[in-house]
Amino acid sequence: MPNETAADRILSGLEAAPILDPHSHINPHSPTSENLADILGYHYYTELARSAGLAKEQIEPKAGRLDPKELVANLVPTLERLDNTVQLSWFTELAQTFFGWEGDRLTRDNWEALYDESARQMAEPGYTDRIIKQTNLEKVFLTNDFDDPLADFDTNFYVPCLRTDGLVFKLHTPEVRERLAKATGVEVGDVDSLRAAIRGLFENFTSKGARACAISLPPWFEPRMEPDDDHRLHALSLRIAFGDDDLRDRAIAASDDGGDGDFDDDAAWFGLVDDVEDYAAENLSHLVFRTLAEHCREFGLPFDLMIGVNRNVYPAGVHQGRDLYDSRCSLSQYADLFNAFPEVTFPVSVLAPTMNQELVSYAWIFPNVVTSGHWWYSNIPAHIAPDLRARLQAVPGDKQIGYYSDAYKLEFVLPKFAMYRRLLAKELAAEFCEGRGWSEERTVEFGLKVLRGNSERLFGG
Amino acid sequence: MPNETAADRILSGLEAAPILDPHSHINPHSPTSENLADILGYHYYTELARSAGLAKEQIEPKAGRLDPKELVANLVPTLERLDNTVQLSWFTELAQTFFGWEGDRLTRDNWEALYDESARQMAEPGYTDRIIKQTNLEKVFLTNDFDDPLADFDTNFYVPCLRTDGLVFKLHTPEVRERLAKATGVEVGDVDSLRAAIRGLFENFTSKGARACAISLPPWFEPRMEPDDDHRLHALSLRIAFGDDDLRDRAIAASDDGGDGDFDDDAAWFGLVDDVEDYAAENLSHLVFRTLAEHCREFGLPFDLMIGVNRNVYPAGVHQGRDLYDSRCSLSQYADLFNAFPEVTFPVSVLAPTMNQELVSYAWIFPNVVTSGHWWYSNIPAHIAPDLRARLQAVPGDKQIGYYSDAYKLEFVLPKFAMYRRLLAKELAAEFCEGRGWSEERTVEFGLKVLRGNSERLFGG
Amino acid sequence: MPNETAADRILSGLEAAPILDPHSHINPHSPTSENLADILGYHYYTELARSAGLAKEQIEPKAGRLDPKELVANLVPTLERLDNTVQLSWFTELAQTFFGWEGDRLTRDNWEALYDESARQMAEPGYTDRIIKQTNLEKVFLTNDFDDPLADFDTNFYVPCLRTDGLVFKLHTPEVRERLAKATGVEVGDVDSLRAAIRGLFENFTSKGARACAISLPPWFEPRMEPDDDHRLHALSLRIAFGDDDLRDRAIAASDDGGDGDFDDDAAWFGLVDDVEDYAAENLSHLVFRTLAEHCREFGLPFDLMIGVNRNVYPAGVHQGRDLYDSRCSLSQYADLFNAFPEVTFPVSVLAPTMNQELVSYAWIFPNVVTSGHWWYSNIPAHIAPDLRARLQAVPGDKQIGYYSDAYKLEFVLPKFAMYRRLLAKELAAEFCEGRGWSEERTVEFGLKVLRGNSERLFGG
Repeated sequence: MPNETAADRILSGLEAAPILDPHSHINPHSPTSENLADILGYHYYTELARSAGLAKEQIEPKAGRLDPKELVANLVPTLERLDNTVQLSWFTELAQTFFGWEGDRLTRDNWEALYDESARQMAEPGYTDRIIKQTNLEKVFLTNDFDDPLADFDTNFYVPCLRTDGLVFKLHTPEVRERLAKATGVEVGDVDSLRAAIRGLFENFTSKGARACAISLPPWFEPRMEPDDDHRLHALSLRIAFGDDDLRDRAIAASDDGGDGDFDDDAAWFGLVDDVEDYAAENLSHLVFRTLAEHCREFGLPFDLMIGVNRNVYPAGVHQGRDLYDSRCSLSQYADLFNAFPEVTFPVSVLAPTMNQELVSYAWIFPNVVTSGHWWYSNIPAHIAPDLRARLQAVPGDKQIGYYSDAYKLEFVLPKFAMYRRLLAKELAAEFCEGRGWSEERTVEFGLKVLRGNSERLFGG
Repeated sequence: MPNETAADRILSGLEAAPILDPHSHINPHSPTSENLADILGYHYYTELARSAGLAKEQIEPKAGRLDPKELVANLVPTLERLDNTVQLSWFTELAQTFFGWEGDRLTRDNWEALYDESARQMAEPGYTDRIIKQTNLEKVFLTNDFDDPLADFDTNFYVPCLRTDGLVFKLHTPEVRERLAKATGVEVGDVDSLRAAIRGLFENFTSKGARACAISLPPWFEPRMEPDDDHRLHALSLRIAFGDDDLRDRAIAASDDGGDGDFDDDAAWFGLVDDVEDYAAENLSHLVFRTLAEHCREFGLPFDLMIGVNRNVYPAGVHQGRDLYDSRCSLSQYADLFNAFPEVTFPVSVLAPTMNQELVSYAWIFPNVVTSGHWWYSNIPAHIAPDLRARLQAVPGDKQIGYYSDAYKLEFVLPKFAMYRRLLAKELAAEFCEGRGWSEERTVEFGLKVLRGNSERLFGG
Repeated sequence: MPNETAADRILSGLEAAPILDPHSHINPHSPTSENLADILGYHYYTELARSAGLAKEQIEPKAGRLDPKELVANLVPTLERLDNTVQLSWFTELAQTFFGWEGDRLTRDNWEALYDESARQMAEPGYTDRIIKQTNLEKVFLTNDFDDPLADFDTNFYVPCLRTDGLVFKLHTPEVRERLAKATGVEVGDVDSLRAAIRGLFENFTSKGARACAISLPPWFEPRMEPDDDHRLHALSLRIAFGDDDLRDRAIAASDDGGDGDFDDDAAWFGLVDDVEDYAAENLSHLVFRTLAEHCREFGLPFDLMIGVNRNVYPAGVHQGRDLYDSRCSLSQYADLFNAFPEVTFPVSVLAPTMNQELVSYAWIFPNVVTSGHWWYSNIPAHIAPDLRARLQAVPGDKQIGYYSDAYKLEFVLPKFAMYRRLLAKELAAEFCEGRGWSEERTVEFGLKVLRGNSERLFGG
């Protein structure tokens, strides 16, 4: 190639290595798609179509489910108007790569042929293997509920990861406590049984090859390393959160009338509390979160923190297309956590690109803070490029987990990683070859560390 | 042109289209300048000159007004030292384009000749028409006070827009209530008469071709969709805000002594309130804001939100050169509004460039949130380029209002749009031609949507 | 040079001028290094090594101090893995420039030869002069404690600067009050004696050529221009802060039991206060800060504000490697200060790059706000480039202090300024030569103003 640039050659070097994808939502029992609805039903497309004016009924009817082909037929006329988005460019790239599509723009006129042809290929034996091979995918991490049986799949390729949002934020609900009891055989009713149940989860997950614990966190969350209030009241609130409904009812009554000041009576303490149930749930959240961190320490698992998401900001949105963020959030909120658990590695992802600047600085100072990927709303080139540049320049090279796909179907691993690798190659060439006179070989070697070597080491067994 | 690039050709394509300017402060009765003082008296120049050390007295004397030529003579020695600013480059470009100026740097030595020559040209018959023609301006939106008679101008070219800052934040003052009464014939004294008056404004404005309602908002404002406190107290506070001075005086007394707990007495409720007048004014602000949104829904007008300005931060500044912002502001504050009025289109402008990142994400999720221009302190290439890049990559192409001039005189429409079009052409070429292999034709077509097509459709009659 | 670009030629123009470094931590009695441990012991290296996993014991043993060569031996294996960082590139550049090093990568194999050779050169007579000459350094500002004797060095070259963090935040401690008494001969015990002591400091410092007063400030600090609470209570709290321990003890007792409501008793006022000592210290901080600003006004000294650092966020870090920031900070917090002291020039540095956007806008409006350098975590090309671009485009050219080294040893002035000059040349060429058709001569002239002319004028004697 006569006009090949350093960036081109570096890109080739990066592309030669198999992909290790350290975070996804792949279902190992159904890792690839059955039809184009599985592809275009990805929330990146349904939420953009919704945002561009498509009625929710056309995507998620109140009654029943749409036939897959009908869903795609409904989406396409709106997607036509979204072809500027990088999200849609992932689709174009995967359709060209995997289905031999020759189009470059999905339209009312050409979608059906692609639908039929891709469905035909998806039904072929060995389709999943072909996708894995074309992607050059070595292994992919999953996102598993705590009560996932983790059975009947190859955990060397599909690496389990314990996702803990529900445990931290919903354990005060009977549903989650019951699921936990079923999964662990432990009825959680106090701090000790909670600890036993969580230990059970970690034993189970690690025995099945889990390599990380993960959670997404709202912008207002600030983990407490010590119960920060009166110990008696705190302990009582946990009893309520663990399901002592009698105490709860008496506590609510005390809260309503301000308490009688007789602190021999347990319930009377709640005269000091505004909202008994919120207070109890919140205290339990912090306890569970600390307990998870303790077990990450004991079991040697990194604790992936995905910081900043507000759930259900747009309730009329489609499935997974309702969440947003508030950039008034700071890694300061996590300093106590990082200090309290120096032995735990925290790969940190942030939602607001503005927070990336804090992330770079925190990873530059805290040994246990690692930069991790480009999450969700940050995962577009306009945000990745400056975020990546700052990391390459100021974060120790061993502490950068370059990218993960966050994909729900394997078909998306390739186009997403391809986008990232192109940006990485460009930044590497500019910063190291052009800027500092590094050889291309040295530059590729470093790039591969960011791209996969660090994931391999940090999540290694 | 042998070295013409794709960006050059795309720029030509964008420049060929007439400009539609969806937000300005043009006075349709005096749309262009009479002399250079009208140009250099623009707050972008007076505030920068003030910031660079020019005494306020040299710009806005305490007594009287400066002769226009004297004002320019006072400004020029300081402006000489500001020639690095992009704001001054707008001046250079317009002077070259409209007055045939051959200079490229305004100095003590050359300003007077330009002053005289430009004044001569401005006095020529047909000057305004010439500016419009050279600008290739199709139409320009205005900013009209609610009591603007909207008379004696061509509302097809100068499109009215109802500006509502005063209604939302000052209706508790007798002055604004009187102006409203005069404009609508309705004496506002309760919720119903308020609604009637606002309906009157919308009827009047839309009958005269208004195509938008607009407001600028401070960073601390968080619209309330429901009165969030005791209904009786809330209702009473509105009576005070509507001018019940007797109740106000008794309420202030009750606030001072903490109230007597006798809630049969209206005033006693205010024992719960710290500052009666602030509380009343604030409740009225939220009521007016909601009522405006309701009428935008009913009359089908987009509601332009310009979010984040703190007024009078530098009180010793020149006219319009006193406002700044606080970047601790989030679109989270508007989520309830966006949810409550799904039928209203909200073109959103933000002041702090950091907030642009939220804006991109909110427009990606909420169907009724549209990105709108690059406002004020964001309106420099260093901020526009990354903000624009993120929008092009992640916001549905139909939901981007690329630019507005915010100009006070028509002479500024051209240089400001020219700056934006150059940036847009460069981003389009890099992202779509180079990055995704689009044809230049397809790229220009998309660019024109961002530049004017979306404004045409969203504000269309 | 046949392929020389405009940026290259502009860079040559910038490099031709001697460096004026308006902020450093140089010790004038030991301005250069004695061995490589003085260079690699810089917190930028020790904190990155710590962050990359090196045990603190290997850097700062609990007992004793490491032999310099041992420290370097300990650091190098970790630094090998940090060679992507721009911080390490400063080292490479200075070793090549000053010691004739031919390596480009410090390793276990080559460090010792460089250690020995550099130690040999450092021990040569005239070493410091050589460094100054090779750096082309004209003068460098220091950071001096208020009780620094400022003796026995050339204050024309090593320009004193009064650093005031301790005065503002620690004057309530007996240690600092005693140091102040010793330095000024004034026992501080009330507002008048405080004023006298501070006047003494300013007289002493300015008589010895000091050209600035400076302070670093935490993100939560919001200077108060007026005592914002009850005057009597405020005055009493100052007595406590000034060391009235008897009143303090009685005040704490009153705070604990809520006071008896008898406000004839001084101590009883503190029934209104939660934490007596915090409250007293905080009031004193604000008083000292205002008093410093008053003396900057009287003595004509700029007041350098370095805004946003949280101290000791990572207590287990190495010396100077424990501080971070919280980007939820705004220049709004300083608007009252800027308004109250229009005669004082405030060169402002910010830590969170996001705050740079506010800084550009505040410098565009406030005559006394000047942009100052790229501080600490902002001092990497990924942040400097966009921050610089916005300043060049929108801040009056006279109000930009381009850069300072913040160095502890003179060897770092060159590589840090070199990094900045390369970025400046590139931005200047793109913005002014290419973007606006300026001649290279005019562009260099403007660049030199940003690089040193403004420092010369604003800090000029």
